[in-house]
Amino acid sequence: MRKPTTYPIVIEQQDTDCTYRASITTIIGKVLNVAGLDANSKGFGVDILNKKSYSWVLSRFSIEMDYLPKAFDRIEITTWINDCNRLMSTRNFIVYNSEGAKIGEAVSQWCMIDLNSRKAVDLSILNILQPTYGEYVLGSLDASIERPHKIPNAQSQTTHNHRAVYTDIDFNKHVNSLRYIDLMLDILPLEALTTPKPLRVDLQYIRESYYGDTLHIKCEKSDNNTTLFEITRDDNIQAAKCKIEWR
Amino acid sequence: MRKPTTYPIVIEQQDTDCTYRASITTIIGKVLNVAGLDANSKGFGVDILNKKSYSWVLSRFSIEMDYLPKAFDRIEITTWINDCNRLMSTRNFIVYNSEGAKIGEAVSQWCMIDLNSRKAVDLSILNILQPTYGEYVLGSLDASIERPHKIPNAQSQTTHNHRAVYTDIDFNKHVNSLRYIDLMLDILPLEALTTPKPLRVDLQYIRESYYGDTLHIKCEKSDNNTTLFEITRDDNIQAAKCKIEWR
Repeated sequence: MRKPTTYPIVIEQQDTDCTYRASITTIIGKVLNVAGLDANSKGFGVDILNKKSYSWVLSRFSIEMDYLPKAFDRIEITTWINDCNRLMSTRNFIVYNSEGAKIGEAVSQWCMIDLNSRKAVDLSILNILQPTYGEYVLGSLDASIERPHKIPNAQSQTTHNHRAVYTDIDFNKHVNSLRYIDLMLDILPLEALTTPKPLRVDLQYIRESYYGDTLHIKCEKSDNNTTLFEITRDDNIQAAKCKIEWR
Repeated sequence: MRKPTTYPIVIEQQDTDCTYRASITTIIGKVLNVAGLDANSKGFGVDILNKKSYSWVLSRFSIEMDYLPKAFDRIEITTWINDCNRLMSTRNFIVYNSEGAKIGEAVSQWCMIDLNSRKAVDLSILNILQPTYGEYVLGSLDASIERPHKIPNAQSQTTHNHRAVYTDIDFNKHVNSLRYIDLMLDILPLEALTTPKPLRVDLQYIRESYYGDTLHIKCEKSDNNTTLFEITRDDNIQAAKCKIEWR
Protein backbone atom coordinates (compact mmCIF):
# COMPACT_ATOMS: atom_id res chain seq x y z
CA MET A 1 0.00 0.00 0.00
CA ARG A 2 1.16 3.50 -0.82
CA LYS A 3 1.40 6.48 1.51
CA PRO A 4 0.21 10.10 1.31
CA THR A 5 2.58 12.42 -0.55
CA THR A 6 3.70 15.84 0.67
CA TYR A 7 4.36 18.87 -1.52
CA PRO A 8 6.21 22.02 -0.40
CA ILE A 9 4.42 25.22 -1.41
CA VAL A 10 5.52 28.84 -1.15
CA ILE A 11 2.93 31.59 -0.77
CA GLU A 12 4.19 34.06 -3.34
CA GLN A 13 3.56 37.76 -3.04
CA GLN A 14 1.21 37.67 -6.03
CA ASP A 15 -0.84 34.98 -4.26
CA THR A 16 -1.84 37.42 -1.55
CA ASP A 17 -4.65 39.92 -1.22
CA CYS A 18 -4.53 43.48 0.15
CA THR A 19 -3.83 42.11 3.66
CA TYR A 20 -0.68 40.30 2.44
CA ARG A 21 -2.34 36.95 3.22
CA ALA A 22 -3.39 34.24 0.77
CA SER A 23 -7.00 34.79 -0.28
CA ILE A 24 -9.56 31.97 0.08
CA THR A 25 -9.28 31.41 -3.66
CA THR A 26 -5.48 31.24 -3.54
CA ILE A 27 -5.34 28.62 -0.80
CA ILE A 28 -7.96 26.51 -2.58
CA GLY A 29 -5.94 26.98 -5.79
CA LYS A 30 -2.77 25.72 -4.06
CA VAL A 31 -4.65 22.66 -2.77
CA LEU A 32 -6.16 21.91 -6.20
CA ASN A 33 -2.80 22.38 -7.86
CA VAL A 34 -1.32 19.77 -5.52
CA ALA A 35 -4.13 17.42 -6.60
CA GLY A 36 -3.05 17.98 -10.20
CA LEU A 37 0.66 17.49 -9.48
CA ASP A 38 0.00 14.33 -7.48
CA ALA A 39 -2.29 12.78 -10.10
CA ASN A 40 0.13 13.69 -12.92
CA SER A 41 3.14 12.23 -11.09
CA LYS A 42 1.28 8.96 -10.48
CA GLY A 43 0.04 8.42 -13.99
CA PHE A 44 -3.62 9.42 -13.78
CA GLY A 45 -3.45 13.19 -14.20
CA VAL A 46 -4.99 15.37 -16.89
CA ASP A 47 -1.75 15.16 -18.91
CA ILE A 48 -2.50 11.45 -19.53
CA LEU A 49 -6.29 11.77 -19.47
CA ASN A 50 -6.40 14.57 -22.05
CA LYS A 51 -4.67 12.30 -24.59
CA LYS A 52 -7.72 10.01 -24.32
CA SER A 53 -10.06 13.06 -24.42
CA TYR A 54 -10.95 12.71 -20.74
CA SER A 55 -10.48 15.22 -17.96
CA TRP A 56 -10.93 15.45 -14.19
CA VAL A 57 -13.66 17.86 -13.13
CA LEU A 58 -14.05 19.07 -9.54
CA SER A 59 -17.51 18.28 -8.21
CA ARG A 60 -17.47 19.11 -4.47
CA PHE A 61 -14.90 20.56 -2.11
CA SER A 62 -14.62 21.44 1.57
CA ILE A 63 -11.76 23.17 3.35
CA GLU A 64 -11.21 24.31 6.93
CA MET A 65 -8.35 26.68 7.72
CA ASP A 66 -7.30 27.97 11.16
CA TYR A 67 -5.79 30.95 9.36
CA LEU A 68 -4.68 31.93 5.88
CA PRO A 69 -0.88 31.90 5.42
CA LYS A 70 0.88 35.15 4.57
CA ALA A 71 3.26 36.18 1.79
CA PHE A 72 6.53 34.19 1.70
CA ASP A 73 5.21 31.53 4.13
CA ARG A 74 6.48 28.05 3.27
CA ILE A 75 3.67 25.58 3.80
CA GLU A 76 3.33 21.88 3.03
CA ILE A 77 0.31 20.08 1.61
CA THR A 78 -0.07 16.33 2.12
CA THR A 79 -2.52 14.54 -0.16
CA TRP A 80 -3.95 11.08 -0.81
CA ILE A 81 -6.94 9.46 -2.49
CA ASN A 82 -9.34 8.32 0.21
CA ASP A 83 -12.09 6.69 -1.81
CA CYS A 84 -13.03 5.91 -5.39
CA ASN A 85 -16.25 4.51 -6.80
CA ARG A 86 -17.53 4.49 -10.38
CA LEU A 87 -18.88 8.04 -10.12
CA MET A 88 -16.57 9.91 -7.80
CA SER A 89 -12.99 9.97 -6.52
CA THR A 90 -12.38 11.54 -3.09
CA ARG A 91 -8.98 13.13 -2.43
CA ASN A 92 -7.98 14.50 0.99
CA PHE A 93 -5.43 17.12 1.97
CA ILE A 94 -3.74 18.36 5.14
CA VAL A 95 -2.11 21.81 5.15
CA TYR A 96 0.88 22.36 7.47
CA ASN A 97 2.66 25.60 8.34
CA SER A 98 6.46 25.95 8.19
CA GLU A 99 6.74 24.63 11.79
CA GLY A 100 4.96 21.44 10.76
CA ALA A 101 1.74 22.27 12.64
CA LYS A 102 -1.56 21.41 10.94
CA ILE A 103 -3.36 24.64 9.98
CA GLY A 104 -6.01 23.22 7.68
CA GLU A 105 -7.61 20.27 6.00
CA ALA A 106 -9.57 19.75 2.78
CA VAL A 107 -11.65 17.13 0.98
CA SER A 108 -12.21 17.17 -2.79
CA GLN A 109 -14.54 15.01 -4.85
CA TRP A 110 -13.94 14.58 -8.55
CA CYS A 111 -15.65 13.06 -11.51
CA MET A 112 -14.19 12.41 -14.92
CA ILE A 113 -15.74 13.69 -18.12
CA ASP A 114 -15.39 12.80 -21.76
CA LEU A 115 -14.21 16.05 -23.35
CA ASN A 116 -16.19 15.40 -26.53
CA SER A 117 -19.57 14.52 -25.03
CA ARG A 118 -18.96 16.54 -21.77
CA LYS A 119 -20.63 13.57 -20.03
CA ALA A 120 -19.38 11.71 -16.93
CA VAL A 121 -17.18 8.66 -17.49
CA ASP A 122 -17.19 5.49 -15.33
CA LEU A 123 -14.10 5.84 -13.12
CA SER A 124 -13.31 2.14 -13.33
CA ILE A 125 -11.50 3.17 -16.53
CA LEU A 126 -8.71 4.42 -14.23
CA ASN A 127 -7.58 0.85 -13.66
CA ILE A 128 -6.99 0.52 -17.40
CA LEU A 129 -5.29 3.92 -17.79
CA GLN A 130 -3.05 3.24 -14.78
CA PRO A 131 -3.02 -0.40 -13.57
CA THR A 132 -1.52 0.58 -10.18
CA TYR A 133 -4.29 3.15 -9.54
CA GLY A 134 -5.99 1.03 -6.86
CA GLU A 135 -2.83 1.00 -4.73
CA TYR A 136 -3.13 4.76 -4.27
CA VAL A 137 -6.63 4.61 -2.76
CA LEU A 138 -6.04 4.74 1.00
CA GLY A 139 -9.53 3.85 2.21
CA SER A 140 -8.59 3.66 5.89
CA LEU A 141 -7.20 7.19 6.01
CA ASP A 142 -10.26 9.43 6.46
CA ALA A 143 -10.12 13.19 6.79
CA SER A 144 -10.91 14.60 10.23
CA ILE A 145 -13.14 17.33 8.73
CA GLU A 146 -16.57 16.66 7.26
CA ARG A 147 -16.84 15.83 3.59
CA PRO A 148 -18.37 18.60 1.43
CA HIS A 149 -21.86 19.58 2.58
CA LYS A 150 -24.92 19.77 0.36
CA ILE A 151 -25.46 23.54 0.12
CA PRO A 152 -28.92 25.15 0.38
CA ASN A 153 -29.92 27.58 -2.36
CA ALA A 154 -29.19 31.23 -1.60
CA GLN A 155 -32.29 33.39 -1.10
CA SER A 156 -31.58 36.91 -2.21
CA GLN A 157 -33.30 39.77 -3.98
CA THR A 158 -30.05 41.13 -5.35
CA THR A 159 -28.30 39.48 -8.25
CA HIS A 160 -24.90 40.47 -9.59
CA ASN A 161 -24.31 39.64 -13.24
CA HIS A 162 -21.06 38.67 -14.93
CA ARG A 163 -20.43 37.72 -18.55
CA ALA A 164 -17.88 34.87 -18.77
CA VAL A 165 -14.79 36.29 -20.51
CA TYR A 166 -11.45 34.99 -21.82
CA THR A 167 -9.68 35.07 -18.45
CA ASP A 168 -12.50 33.09 -16.78
CA ILE A 169 -12.06 30.06 -19.06
CA ASP A 170 -9.49 27.34 -18.43
CA PHE A 171 -7.93 24.46 -20.36
CA ASN A 172 -11.15 22.46 -19.80
CA LYS A 173 -12.85 25.17 -21.93
CA HIS A 174 -15.30 26.07 -19.16
CA VAL A 175 -15.37 28.74 -16.45
CA ASN A 176 -12.59 27.80 -14.04
CA SER A 177 -13.59 26.45 -10.62
CA LEU A 178 -11.55 29.14 -8.88
CA ARG A 179 -13.10 31.98 -10.87
CA TYR A 180 -16.52 31.10 -9.46
CA ILE A 181 -15.06 31.60 -5.98
CA ASP A 182 -13.56 34.97 -6.96
CA LEU A 183 -16.89 36.08 -8.43
CA MET A 184 -18.64 35.15 -5.19
CA LEU A 185 -16.05 36.75 -2.88
CA ASP A 186 -16.10 39.94 -4.93
CA ILE A 187 -19.66 40.75 -3.88
CA LEU A 188 -18.86 40.56 -0.14
CA PRO A 189 -17.96 43.69 1.82
CA LEU A 190 -14.17 44.09 2.05
CA GLU A 191 -14.20 43.82 5.88
CA ALA A 192 -15.63 40.27 5.70
CA LEU A 193 -12.61 39.17 3.69
CA THR A 194 -9.88 41.06 5.46
CA THR A 195 -10.70 40.19 9.10
CA PRO A 196 -8.64 37.10 9.96
CA LYS A 197 -10.84 34.29 11.36
CA PRO A 198 -10.84 30.47 11.13
CA LEU A 199 -13.16 29.41 8.34
CA ARG A 200 -14.79 26.55 6.51
CA VAL A 201 -15.71 26.72 2.82
CA ASP A 202 -17.98 24.23 1.03
CA LEU A 203 -18.22 24.23 -2.75
CA GLN A 204 -20.54 22.40 -5.08
CA TYR A 205 -20.00 22.50 -8.84
CA ILE A 206 -23.18 21.48 -10.60
CA ARG A 207 -23.06 22.33 -14.30
CA GLU A 208 -20.43 23.85 -16.53
CA SER A 209 -20.67 27.35 -17.92
CA TYR A 210 -18.84 28.62 -20.98
CA TYR A 211 -17.34 31.64 -22.70
CA GLY A 212 -20.01 34.28 -23.30
CA ASP A 213 -22.49 32.89 -20.74
CA THR A 214 -24.01 35.49 -18.44
CA LEU A 215 -23.69 34.33 -14.85
CA HIS A 216 -26.05 35.51 -12.11
CA ILE A 217 -24.52 35.58 -8.64
CA LYS A 218 -26.70 35.55 -5.51
CA CYS A 219 -25.48 35.90 -1.95
CA GLU A 220 -27.35 35.35 1.34
CA LYS A 221 -26.10 35.90 4.89
CA SER A 222 -27.86 32.87 6.39
CA ASP A 223 -26.73 33.65 9.96
CA ASN A 224 -24.15 35.86 11.68
CA ASN A 225 -21.24 33.72 10.55
CA THR A 226 -22.46 31.94 7.45
CA THR A 227 -22.91 33.18 3.90
CA LEU A 228 -24.46 31.19 1.05
CA PHE A 229 -23.72 31.85 -2.62
CA GLU A 230 -25.30 30.57 -5.79
CA ILE A 231 -24.31 31.11 -9.42
CA THR A 232 -26.85 30.37 -12.13
CA ARG A 233 -26.53 30.57 -15.89
CA ASP A 234 -28.86 32.48 -18.21
CA ASP A 235 -30.91 29.32 -18.77
CA ASN A 236 -31.59 29.25 -15.00
CA ILE A 237 -29.42 26.15 -14.49
CA GLN A 238 -27.25 26.28 -11.35
CA ALA A 239 -23.54 26.27 -12.13
CA ALA A 240 -22.02 26.45 -8.63
CA LYS A 241 -22.92 26.94 -4.97
CA CYS A 242 -20.77 27.90 -2.04
CA LYS A 243 -21.07 28.21 1.73
CA ILE A 244 -18.54 30.12 3.83
CA GLU A 245 -18.61 29.86 7.63
CA TRP A 246 -16.39 32.15 9.67
CA ARG A 247 -15.82 30.62 13.10
CA MET B 1 30.62 43.57 -10.83
CA ARG B 2 27.71 41.15 -10.46
CA LYS B 3 26.10 39.03 -13.18
CA PRO B 4 22.51 38.45 -14.28
CA THR B 5 20.65 35.80 -12.28
CA THR B 6 18.57 33.00 -13.78
CA TYR B 7 15.37 31.57 -12.28
CA PRO B 8 13.75 28.28 -13.33
CA ILE B 9 9.99 28.61 -13.86
CA VAL B 10 7.37 25.96 -14.55
CA ILE B 11 4.25 26.85 -16.50
CA GLU B 12 1.60 25.22 -14.32
CA GLN B 13 -1.68 24.02 -15.72
CA GLN B 14 -3.55 26.79 -13.87
CA ASP B 15 -1.29 29.37 -15.58
CA THR B 16 -2.72 28.48 -18.97
CA ASP B 17 -5.74 29.66 -20.91
CA CYS B 18 -8.24 27.62 -22.92
CA THR B 19 -5.50 26.82 -25.49
CA TYR B 20 -3.29 25.21 -22.81
CA ARG B 21 -0.71 28.00 -23.32
CA ALA B 22 0.32 30.71 -20.87
CA SER B 23 -1.81 33.80 -21.39
CA ILE B 24 -0.16 37.18 -22.01
CA THR B 25 -0.98 38.09 -18.41
CA THR B 26 0.55 34.87 -17.07
CA ILE B 27 3.86 35.31 -18.85
CA ILE B 28 4.09 38.94 -17.73
CA GLY B 29 3.21 37.74 -14.22
CA LYS B 30 6.04 35.19 -14.29
CA VAL B 31 8.49 37.88 -15.41
CA LEU B 32 7.33 40.34 -12.73
CA ASN B 33 7.48 37.61 -10.09
CA VAL B 34 11.12 36.99 -11.03
CA ALA B 35 11.74 40.72 -10.55
CA GLY B 36 10.31 40.40 -7.04
CA LEU B 37 12.29 37.27 -6.19
CA ASP B 38 15.52 38.79 -7.49
CA ALA B 39 15.07 42.09 -5.62
CA ASN B 40 14.11 40.26 -2.40
CA SER B 41 17.09 37.91 -2.58
CA LYS B 42 19.46 40.84 -3.07
CA GLY B 43 18.18 42.99 -0.23
CA PHE B 44 16.11 45.62 -2.03
CA GLY B 45 12.78 43.87 -2.47
CA VAL B 46 9.37 44.83 -1.16
CA ASP B 47 9.93 42.64 1.92
CA ILE B 48 12.63 45.11 3.07
CA LEU B 49 11.03 48.20 1.52
CA ASN B 50 7.64 47.64 3.14
CA LYS B 51 9.25 47.80 6.60
CA LYS B 52 10.26 51.38 5.75
CA SER B 53 6.78 52.03 4.26
CA TYR B 54 8.12 52.08 0.70
CA SER B 55 7.17 49.87 -2.21
CA TRP B 56 8.22 49.25 -5.82
CA VAL B 57 5.58 50.26 -8.36
CA LEU B 58 5.75 49.20 -12.00
CA SER B 59 5.72 52.20 -14.30
CA ARG B 60 6.40 50.90 -17.82
CA PHE B 61 6.93 47.50 -19.33
CA SER B 62 7.66 45.98 -22.74
CA ILE B 63 7.85 42.32 -23.69
CA GLU B 64 8.39 40.47 -26.96
CA MET B 65 7.65 36.76 -27.16
CA ASP B 66 8.19 34.45 -30.15
CA TYR B 67 5.50 32.21 -28.70
CA LEU B 68 3.76 31.65 -25.39
CA PRO B 69 4.95 28.51 -23.54
CA LYS B 70 2.47 25.73 -22.89
CA ALA B 71 1.37 23.86 -19.75
CA PHE B 72 4.19 21.97 -17.99
CA ASP B 73 6.92 23.75 -20.03
CA ARG B 74 10.02 24.44 -17.96
CA ILE B 75 11.37 27.85 -18.89
CA GLU B 76 14.13 30.02 -17.46
CA ILE B 77 14.08 33.75 -16.89
CA THR B 78 17.36 35.67 -16.59
CA THR B 79 17.18 39.13 -15.04
CA TRP B 80 19.40 42.08 -14.18
CA ILE B 81 19.12 45.78 -13.41
CA ASN B 82 20.27 47.71 -16.45
CA ASP B 83 19.94 51.28 -15.28
CA CYS B 84 18.94 53.30 -12.24
CA ASN B 85 18.52 57.05 -11.83
CA ARG B 86 16.75 59.01 -9.11
CA LEU B 87 13.30 58.49 -10.67
CA MET B 88 13.38 55.11 -12.33
CA SER B 89 15.07 51.71 -12.16
CA THR B 90 15.21 49.65 -15.37
CA ARG B 91 15.28 45.86 -15.09
CA ASN B 92 15.73 43.56 -18.09
CA PHE B 93 14.74 39.95 -18.65
CA ILE B 94 15.45 37.18 -21.15
CA VAL B 95 13.06 34.21 -21.38
CA TYR B 96 14.51 30.85 -22.46
CA ASN B 97 12.67 27.64 -23.36
CA SER B 98 13.65 24.26 -21.90
CA GLU B 99 16.22 23.77 -24.69
CA GLY B 100 17.96 26.99 -23.69
CA ALA B 101 16.83 28.93 -26.78
CA LYS B 102 15.76 32.54 -26.27
CA ILE B 103 12.01 32.86 -26.84
CA GLY B 104 11.43 36.31 -25.42
CA GLU B 105 12.77 39.44 -23.83
CA ALA B 106 11.34 42.11 -21.54
CA VAL B 107 12.18 45.52 -20.08
CA SER B 108 10.55 46.87 -16.92
CA GLN B 109 10.81 50.35 -15.44
CA TRP B 110 10.01 50.90 -11.79
CA CYS B 111 9.62 53.77 -9.42
CA MET B 112 9.41 53.61 -5.64
CA ILE B 113 6.56 55.13 -3.68
CA ASP B 114 6.09 56.10 -0.06
CA LEU B 115 3.13 53.98 1.06
CA ASN B 116 1.82 56.75 3.32
CA SER B 117 1.95 59.69 0.92
CA ARG B 118 1.61 57.46 -2.26
CA LYS B 119 4.24 59.84 -3.76
CA ALA B 120 7.42 58.86 -5.63
CA VAL B 121 10.61 58.51 -3.58
CA ASP B 122 14.14 59.44 -4.78
CA LEU B 123 15.75 56.11 -5.69
CA SER B 124 19.14 57.17 -4.31
CA ILE B 125 17.68 55.91 -1.01
CA LEU B 126 18.44 52.39 -2.32
CA ASN B 127 22.13 52.91 -1.57
CA ILE B 128 21.21 53.44 2.08
CA LEU B 129 18.76 50.52 2.27
CA GLN B 130 21.25 48.18 0.56
CA PRO B 131 24.82 49.54 0.35
CA THR B 132 25.78 47.00 -2.38
CA TYR B 133 22.82 48.06 -4.59
CA GLY B 134 25.06 49.84 -7.12
CA GLU B 135 27.01 46.64 -7.85
CA TYR B 136 23.84 45.08 -9.26
CA VAL B 137 23.31 47.80 -11.89
CA LEU B 138 24.82 46.32 -15.08
CA GLY B 139 24.79 49.44 -17.26
CA SER B 140 26.65 47.85 -20.16
CA LEU B 141 24.16 45.02 -20.60
CA ASP B 142 21.33 46.53 -22.66
CA ALA B 143 18.25 44.62 -23.81
CA SER B 144 18.06 43.84 -27.52
CA ILE B 145 14.37 44.86 -27.65
CA GLU B 146 13.20 48.46 -27.46
CA ARG B 147 12.44 49.94 -24.08
CA PRO B 148 8.71 50.49 -23.35
CA HIS B 149 7.09 52.79 -25.92
CA LYS B 150 5.02 55.84 -25.12
CA ILE B 151 1.50 54.66 -25.98
CA PRO B 152 -0.99 56.86 -27.90
CA ASN B 153 -4.46 57.27 -26.38
CA ALA B 154 -7.05 54.79 -27.65
CA GLN B 155 -9.81 56.36 -29.76
CA SER B 156 -13.01 54.43 -29.34
CA GLN B 157 -16.72 55.05 -29.04
CA THR B 158 -17.25 51.94 -26.95
CA THR B 159 -16.30 51.85 -23.31
CA HIS B 160 -16.46 48.80 -21.06
CA ASN B 161 -16.89 49.54 -17.36
CA HIS B 162 -15.56 47.59 -14.41
CA ARG B 163 -15.85 48.34 -10.70
CA ALA B 164 -12.60 47.49 -8.88
CA VAL B 165 -13.38 44.60 -6.50
CA TYR B 166 -11.57 42.62 -3.78
CA THR B 167 -9.76 40.27 -6.17
CA ASP B 168 -8.44 43.21 -8.25
CA ILE B 169 -6.53 44.74 -5.33
CA ASP B 170 -3.05 43.61 -4.30
CA PHE B 171 -0.75 44.05 -1.30
CA ASN B 172 0.04 47.57 -2.52
CA LYS B 173 -3.67 48.31 -1.88
CA HIS B 174 -4.28 49.36 -5.48
CA VAL B 175 -5.59 47.57 -8.58
CA ASN B 176 -2.91 45.03 -9.48
CA SER B 177 -0.83 45.70 -12.61
CA LEU B 178 -1.77 42.31 -14.05
CA ARG B 179 -5.49 42.82 -13.51
CA TYR B 180 -5.43 45.83 -15.85
CA ILE B 181 -4.04 43.52 -18.54
CA ASP B 182 -6.77 40.93 -17.90
CA LEU B 183 -9.45 43.63 -18.08
CA MET B 184 -8.05 44.80 -21.43
CA LEU B 185 -7.66 41.30 -22.92
CA ASP B 186 -11.17 40.36 -21.86
CA ILE B 187 -12.73 42.82 -24.30
CA LEU B 188 -10.90 41.34 -27.31
CA PRO B 189 -12.53 38.67 -29.48
CA LEU B 190 -11.46 35.18 -28.38
CA GLU B 191 -9.80 34.43 -31.75
CA ALA B 192 -7.34 37.30 -31.29
CA LEU B 193 -6.07 35.69 -28.09
CA THR B 194 -6.07 32.07 -29.12
CA THR B 195 -4.26 32.31 -32.46
CA PRO B 196 -0.54 31.75 -31.74
CA LYS B 197 1.59 34.58 -33.15
CA PRO B 198 4.78 36.36 -32.04
CA LEU B 199 3.84 39.49 -30.16
CA ARG B 200 5.05 42.63 -28.46
CA VAL B 201 3.21 44.21 -25.52
CA ASP B 202 3.87 47.71 -24.17
CA LEU B 203 2.38 48.82 -20.87
CA GLN B 204 2.27 52.19 -19.22
CA TYR B 205 0.98 52.58 -15.67
CA ILE B 206 0.08 56.18 -15.02
CA ARG B 207 -1.99 56.57 -11.86
CA GLU B 208 -3.19 54.14 -9.24
CA SER B 209 -6.81 53.09 -8.91
CA TYR B 210 -8.38 51.67 -5.79
CA TYR B 211 -11.10 49.39 -4.39
CA GLY B 212 -14.52 50.65 -5.48
CA ASP B 213 -13.26 52.81 -8.37
CA THR B 214 -15.17 52.40 -11.61
CA LEU B 215 -12.72 51.80 -14.44
CA HIS B 216 -13.54 52.65 -18.05
CA ILE B 217 -11.77 50.48 -20.63
CA LYS B 218 -11.34 51.61 -24.23
CA CYS B 219 -9.90 49.57 -27.05
CA GLU B 220 -8.84 50.66 -30.59
CA LYS B 221 -7.56 48.49 -33.43
CA SER B 222 -5.01 51.01 -34.72
CA ASP B 223 -3.97 48.84 -37.68
CA ASN B 224 -4.30 45.21 -38.77
CA ASN B 225 -1.85 43.95 -36.19
CA THR B 226 -1.92 46.55 -33.44
CA THR B 227 -4.47 47.21 -30.72
CA LEU B 228 -4.37 50.11 -28.26
CA PHE B 229 -6.04 50.05 -24.84
CA GLU B 230 -6.68 52.74 -22.29
CA ILE B 231 -8.16 52.51 -18.79
CA THR B 232 -9.41 55.66 -17.12
CA ARG B 233 -10.88 56.20 -13.68
CA ASP B 234 -14.20 57.87 -12.92
CA ASP B 235 -12.41 61.21 -12.43
CA ASN B 236 -11.19 60.93 -16.04
CA ILE B 237 -7.57 60.34 -14.97
CA GLN B 238 -5.75 57.69 -17.01
CA ALA B 239 -4.73 54.67 -14.92
CA ALA B 240 -3.06 52.46 -17.55
CA LYS B 241 -2.42 52.15 -21.27
CA CYS B 242 -1.40 49.16 -23.33
CA LYS B 243 -0.38 48.39 -26.90
CA ILE B 244 -0.34 44.86 -28.29
CA GLU B 245 1.28 44.14 -31.67
CA TRP B 246 0.84 40.70 -33.21
CA ARG B 247 3.65 40.10 -35.70
